[in-house]
Amino acid sequence: MSNITLAQANTIIEAAFAKGAEMGLKPLSVAVLDSGGHLIAFQRSDNSSFLRHEIASGKAYGALAVGAGSRWLNAQAETRPHFLEGLSSVSGGKIVAVPGGVLVKDKIGAIVGAVGISGDTSDNDEICGIHGIEAAGMTADGG
Amino acid sequence: MSNITLAQANTIIEAAFAKGAEMGLKPLSVAVLDSGGHLIAFQRSDNSSFLRHEIASGKAYGALAVGAGSRWLNAQAETRPHFLEGLSSVSGGKIVAVPGGVLVKDKIGAIVGAVGISGDTSDNDEICGIHGIEAAGMTADGG
Amino acid sequence: MSNITLAQANTIIEAAFAKGAEMGLKPLSVAVLDSGGHLIAFQRSDNSSFLRHEIASGKAYGALAVGAGSRWLNAQAETRPHFLEGLSSVSGGKIVAVPGGVLVKDKIGAIVGAVGISGDTSDNDEICGIHGIEAAGMTADGG
Amino acid sequence: MSNITLAQANTIIEAAFAKGAEMGLKPLSVAVLDSGGHLIAFQRSDNSSFLRHEIASGKAYGALAVGAGSRWLNAQAETRPHFLEGLSSVSGGKIVAVPGGVLVKDKIGAIVGAVGISGDTSDNDEICGIHGIEAAGMTADGG
Repeated sequence: MSNITLAQANTIIEAAFAKGAEMGLKPLSVAVLDSGGHLIAFQRSDNSSFLRHEIASGKAYGALAVGAGSRWLNAQAETRPHFLEGLSSVSGGKIVAVPGGVLVKDKIGAIVGAVGISGDTSDNDEICGIHGIEAAGMTADGG
Repeated sequence: MSNITLAQANTIIEAAFAKGAEMGLKPLSVAVLDSGGHLIAFQRSDNSSFLRHEIASGKAYGALAVGAGSRWLNAQAETRPHFLEGLSSVSGGKIVAVPGGVLVKDKIGAIVGAVGISGDTSDNDEICGIHGIEAAGMTADGG
Repeated sequence: MSNITLAQANTIIEAAFAKGAEMGLKPLSVAVLDSGGHLIAFQRSDNSSFLRHEIASGKAYGALAVGAGSRWLNAQAETRPHFLEGLSSVSGGKIVAVPGGVLVKDKIGAIVGAVGISGDTSDNDEICGIHGIEAAGMTADGG
Repeated sequence: MSNITLAQANTIIEAAFAKGAEMGLKPLSVAVLDSGGHLIAFQRSDNSSFLRHEIASGKAYGALAVGAGSRWLNAQAETRPHFLEGLSSVSGGKIVAVPGGVLVKDKIGAIVGAVGISGDTSDNDEICGIHGIEAAGMTADGG
């Protein structure tokens, strides 16, 4: 299994920020996690509220925990809220189950990490995450 | 009170995996807990996401905590979500209240442990758990 | 980076148990974690106390968290106890800093996971962990 | 009170990495926190173990929590370990009390955030943190 390098993580963040600026979004924050759910890189835009790391990382962690983008978790929360509550509990409270947690896959489809974005609407957050991952030459799966 | 031996736990896991393969399910993970809710054995199939131990054990723990298979907990969550939230809280966040947590009973009906499975749909997970328990010569109660 | 497969994890556990039996040790419990600190497989011998999963996994988790076998953590605890307390705290209380958490490395020296053993003395636990890893054709680093 | 901008945080991290490379240190990880103890930016070098964010942020958080660089906390831990244990507890387990958590002050001496570094010895970590802060035109206080 390959990894996301720090250089790739920085590329993802910069490209996600550029997409947000192009779309005129609110200030974004972007977290890049490795396949085990551990932080590689994070940047929070100026004038963002302080919990952005926890939110962005929580989306990415949730995606990795179940092997599906956080849009899938969001759908589960609507149909089976108690399942999401259980997932959140057994993860130690690390999951934010709304869109914007996007799996990163390598060329053979293996999950090598995830990107979490927070700052604008969840849908717009996800668009920027996908853009960032593709700008770094990898495959995105938002769920 | 009798216990589940490690040899029985391994038999349960192997039989559950065999059932999953026979049914063509996604990669499964299986946890076997003793009657006190403590882990005896666990195996996670290759290419599974990383939170499988916590999910599988959370189903089994929930079943043991109330003395009913986790399918009963799932029904409670739908009709009395605040009860499940309370249970989860007082357990220290250890419960996942969806089907797939199956009580293991001995020949006189005493609860000797529980099996938790995660990886496919909750219903399919439960089928494999029941199969594993019966393959080891014990009685299964999914709720 | 390569992974530890479930088949390899089971081989490690069986070989560690065999070594413990050969040495006449107390009943052992063995956890195998992936490189992100998540459980692949665990087995607890009959007649062991109930916290063995948490102890064995805590040794392995600690080794992975800092990239050194838990014998190194044990030495740190003696010279800088406050450092170990800090590590434990920021890990969410997941670390047991005594020998018996052994890194697993592949042929190019990359860390692919860790094995944690508990049940006899920490030194004997470590011997069995190293034996198990080598029996599976990988390289062990106890710290 | 002024803040550390994201641009300044990135400058601090890049300069700290450059200093580590110049000194031939092990792979470093650097966290930059705002004055409220919340993450602005973080980067983990390739081939670092996975708990680096928690360790680096834990040094910086501890420094901000008491208004002194984490070298001061390290000294407290040696003379009054129970004080550090209390601090750690009331912080929710967020403090790592060894050198390498460096306060960032503006031109009038106000604390505007902190930098935490992990990867080499605590002393070398601190040197790189101080270098990064000064490269961004601010004042460093290691304790």
